[in-house]
Amino acid sequence: MANLFEEIQPVVYKNGKVFFLDQTVLPAETKWLEVDSVETCRDAIRRLAVRGAPAIGIAAAFGMLLASRAAPKGSFEEYYSYMKNAGEYLATSRPTAVNLFWALKRVDKKILELRERPLSEIDAAVEKEALDIQNEDEEVCRAIGLHGQEIFTEGRNRFTVLTHCNAGALATSKYGTALAPIYVAKERGLDVRVFVDETRPLLQGSRLTAYELHMSGVDVTVITDGMAASVMGKGWIDACIVGCDRMAANGDAANKIGTYGVALLARAHNIPFYVACPLSTVDMATRRGSDIEIEERDPLEVSEGMGKRTAPQGVKVYNPAFDVTPHELISGVITEKGLLRPPYAKAIAEL
Amino acid sequence: MANLFEEIQPVVYKNGKVFFLDQTVLPAETKWLEVDSVETCRDAIRRLAVRGAPAIGIAAAFGMLLASRAAPKGSFEEYYSYMKNAGEYLATSRPTAVNLFWALKRVDKKILELRERPLSEIDAAVEKEALDIQNEDEEVCRAIGLHGQEIFTEGRNRFTVLTHCNAGALATSKYGTALAPIYVAKERGLDVRVFVDETRPLLQGSRLTAYELHMSGVDVTVITDGMAASVMGKGWIDACIVGCDRMAANGDAANKIGTYGVALLARAHNIPFYVACPLSTVDMATRRGSDIEIEERDPLEVSEGMGKRTAPQGVKVYNPAFDVTPHELISGVITEKGLLRPPYAKAIAEL
Repeated sequence: MANLFEEIQPVVYKNGKVFFLDQTVLPAETKWLEVDSVETCRDAIRRLAVRGAPAIGIAAAFGMLLASRAAPKGSFEEYYSYMKNAGEYLATSRPTAVNLFWALKRVDKKILELRERPLSEIDAAVEKEALDIQNEDEEVCRAIGLHGQEIFTEGRNRFTVLTHCNAGALATSKYGTALAPIYVAKERGLDVRVFVDETRPLLQGSRLTAYELHMSGVDVTVITDGMAASVMGKGWIDACIVGCDRMAANGDAANKIGTYGVALLARAHNIPFYVACPLSTVDMATRRGSDIEIEERDPLEVSEGMGKRTAPQGVKVYNPAFDVTPHELISGVITEKGLLRPPYAKAIAEL
Repeated sequence: MANLFEEIQPVVYKNGKVFFLDQTVLPAETKWLEVDSVETCRDAIRRLAVRGAPAIGIAAAFGMLLASRAAPKGSFEEYYSYMKNAGEYLATSRPTAVNLFWALKRVDKKILELRERPLSEIDAAVEKEALDIQNEDEEVCRAIGLHGQEIFTEGRNRFTVLTHCNAGALATSKYGTALAPIYVAKERGLDVRVFVDETRPLLQGSRLTAYELHMSGVDVTVITDGMAASVMGKGWIDACIVGCDRMAANGDAANKIGTYGVALLARAHNIPFYVACPLSTVDMATRRGSDIEIEERDPLEVSEGMGKRTAPQGVKVYNPAFDVTPHELISGVITEKGLLRPPYAKAIAEL
């Protein structure tokens, strides 16, 4: 598995060129796509070559950078009309991805701010905006990683974490959220080991988390979701760390299906259970987890998960994308501003 | 999915012919193998066309019936030598299957008992022994099903059970163990519904349990293992019933990996958790669950579970076949002699 770049990053900007790590061929192949146009950028986002909310936003911003290079430079109106079209086109790649729209809006705002300035200056500002979006995300992830060090008990030089799904570098700019404390701990010389649930139905744990940790030299062991209780029962796990898709104002956390079960099993074994996420994940308008609507996905993800039919034709399948872990089961929330402890409603409101 | 026979049975003896339901092509296809020789019988057991401890024993007994038809009828010595060879040959099909040896020994014993009788009488006795082995298993399963009715709360006409793996008709003569109470409840007009964990890595839940329940007209829904907590949290599950591979004298139960997690999740949601098994599953020589050695299986079952690589090359995989559910988490053990309640050490010793 030769890697073109040293570190696991889904979007790399180097010598003026944009590269995406093609996540559709992971974990079998490490393939970098050179993305040189708005079209190839949109196509890569659409077919999930790049995925994960922050990473999609970053990819879209670099899509706008590519658009700026191709945009006509006659007048601002001509230039802006081209950029506007490019943004709308990129927005069609993943129409439910909030970070995609947020990043496109941010680039659009920057262009409009500079409408009186020379186009070359606007071009430079678009490039800077894409890099800023990426760097800011990296800073947030790094800060999560640093604050996460608090969970590693002082005086111990070995620590084993169980994680679920992929809240790693591949989903962000770098480091990830749930995996950030692990990468930082490794940098600092801690012998940190990871058990990862494969995370059916889409196997983000075995396909992506195991890949990025393995490539980064972290000791990682893949288990099926049903084995988590067993490894906890053996006393092999010191802490669980998971990511979060949406956190309610009271600390209830919606995340990949299976997370709630991991939290209950951790509680049964007196293992601390942490959620790692940027503060932007907290939705103050959602009072509690039960207010979060759970998307149900295509039953074929379960019954034909790996190309082959694994359940009888016509049988019912229930395939919720997420579950909600109640705040009572969460030992701490690792954010870029610090490790929050219960009561979360208060800790969150204070920030 | 046309079915040759009315009910789900792995081994059918009809009009002097032996048929196995080919479990290797389930759930996509319902294909009956006509087994007409010791060779085809051994081959079917070896390649898992028939699986599940009791079903393997039954299949082997019918293999001996087929041998008796081909055996030379000159003298008892000639006949017995042929049968002895056939038994040894069948024994090589699944060298770790205890029921296989038990059934072969039983047929062998019967032949030796009748050594002074005419060969035609021995032939008839071999046939009767195969049918007895099958019928006795069916009676045990049926009795488990009947005693299991106790768990269905009086006065309710709808009941939803969660099960894990396959402890059903396909693994026994008929009815199964964990599924027997469900089949009997359905016969009695109860609206019994089932959620089944797909049961990674080998997917016996979605491939086999969903198949046999669906074919039998039971309302069944497949979920991934990570979804069990979620459906319990929604209040959809009234009870869990699972099978058992080996029960220690204190009631600790070794069963398919993932069972222990289901038991913990059931406890967290105040859902009763039952183990259904014949008393022959109780190993009095094993004092407690921690004395049971857990087999670790091929990592490829996890990392290449469905033909395609789902974890990076070189990454570690932990793949235990079983886990042990401590007796404290078991609400009752459904046996052919009745529903045992804690303390199990006492209840088991009394029987």
